[in-house]
Amino acid sequence: MTEAFVAPHPPYLLTVFLEDTDATGFVYHSNYLKYCERARTELLYHKGVSHAKLIESHRAMFVVYSIVCQFLAPARLEDQLLIYTDIESIQGARINLKQSIVKDGQLLVKADIALACVDQNSQPPKPIRVPKFIISALNSKT
Amino acid sequence: MTEAFVAPHPPYLLTVFLEDTDATGFVYHSNYLKYCERARTELLYHKGVSHAKLIESHRAMFVVYSIVCQFLAPARLEDQLLIYTDIESIQGARINLKQSIVKDGQLLVKADIALACVDQNSQPPKPIRVPKFIISALNSKT
Amino acid sequence: MTEAFVAPHPPYLLTVFLEDTDATGFVYHSNYLKYCERARTELLYHKGVSHAKLIESHRAMFVVYSIVCQFLAPARLEDQLLIYTDIESIQGARINLKQSIVKDGQLLVKADIALACVDQNSQPPKPIRVPKFIISALNSKT
Amino acid sequence: MTEAFVAPHPPYLLTVFLEDTDATGFVYHSNYLKYCERARTELLYHKGVSHAKLIESHRAMFVVYSIVCQFLAPARLEDQLLIYTDIESIQGARINLKQSIVKDGQLLVKADIALACVDQNSQPPKPIRVPKFIISALNSKT
Repeated sequence: MTEAFVAPHPPYLLTVFLEDTDATGFVYHSNYLKYCERARTELLYHKGVSHAKLIESHRAMFVVYSIVCQFLAPARLEDQLLIYTDIESIQGARINLKQSIVKDGQLLVKADIALACVDQNSQPPKPIRVPKFIISALNSKT
Repeated sequence: MTEAFVAPHPPYLLTVFLEDTDATGFVYHSNYLKYCERARTELLYHKGVSHAKLIESHRAMFVVYSIVCQFLAPARLEDQLLIYTDIESIQGARINLKQSIVKDGQLLVKADIALACVDQNSQPPKPIRVPKFIISALNSKT
Repeated sequence: MTEAFVAPHPPYLLTVFLEDTDATGFVYHSNYLKYCERARTELLYHKGVSHAKLIESHRAMFVVYSIVCQFLAPARLEDQLLIYTDIESIQGARINLKQSIVKDGQLLVKADIALACVDQNSQPPKPIRVPKFIISALNSKT
Repeated sequence: MTEAFVAPHPPYLLTVFLEDTDATGFVYHSNYLKYCERARTELLYHKGVSHAKLIESHRAMFVVYSIVCQFLAPARLEDQLLIYTDIESIQGARINLKQSIVKDGQLLVKADIALACVDQNSQPPKPIRVPKFIISALNSKT
């Protein structure tokens, strides 16, 4: 069953450090995906869902299943970036997110990211339904 | 104008080191994109095209414009991976690649990656046509 | 000439994300050095010194010259860490720092880090005196 | 008991990729420590010691205990680097290594690295004696 919704969440703020950049002078492309992961992790924390809890209580974890990502403009050293995360839908084992990286109102990167909830103990990892407490947490307005 | 072709290239081989993995025990998702970048860079070197030369002779560089990526199965510490790179097409400023990460014959990750050739000195970076010597190099069979 | 002093600065706070960890379940060792660099960069920003300004106005940049580092206890996913930075001395081209990474009052990592101020345009980079405005900024109490 | 010896091993070869560099145009300082870890891991593999085996057979793993590192000259994009690893001594739970990163005969980075063998299951990780099969492997000439 699908529970589609778009909820505006407060963006995640970060500063670009030297470690994030490469010799082109811009942020190395795959680091934007780290930024997205930080932002959605913080969103989950904010809603009371932690990786550690998820593993302990449900032996479950989220893995990235697919990414569709466009790099529209680059970020540089010392830039302040906002990362927006919107939960598009939760379907079975999957959570679909839209994430945007914005600098001074300009969209730099947009990413559609599908996470899969998997059983931590199965080899290879098997998809399992997103636990109900996570769906509730994600649907909460706080 | 489009110059579409599919050329089989020798794959790039790498070993998964501790730095590549995360606390799930698998390779951290964005690191697969680093692997892809290593593989296509080596392919270009192999064909005589280097970043350094490109910047010096044409003040041009390649940036990643878009990524469509599926993570089908995970890699682990000490895995030996092959990364295959096929050049799908070169159109104006853009090079479209298909890359695959394979372990023991199993497809782990597949990625469609679009690179844009940009003028290094323009701010923001402006797309410029892929220089002819690169098209020739990429079309060469060696 | 040496201007030795120890000034207590507010620590830099960060959360350990998945990207920081490795398959041992702990933070990958070299990532603690990234944390230290974030902390000292923020300290410089806080005192009005930015990389970008330094490069523009003085064609200078800081590079890490040496590190002496002990890893006493590990950090894990979701840990909240404090990074303390104390400026030990500024001598000619060099700034000597003591940095500590602390979790819940426990010292995890301590690092002695020497930065060298170098001329951005010389090849290889040549050491130059730390600009006076930086010494003043670092000595300021705010 | 100490078993001190210096054995010359074949160096580990790598190419600097874009991911390794930062906006200064050089390799980001902490990435040299990743290079060292790749080199000593390959040395262990070469001698028949793998992380995976070590964990399975002895529930042991190596962690970095301390680093003393000097960055003498920088590496750039596309540089070919050699990393030399010499085992200085094995004492109880500790292995002391000297590692050097060399480009075209020039020493770029030298690092004294102490590894600690720890029990994977203890929290926090407790040091344990380096297993004998590892000492034998490291002492072997092949």
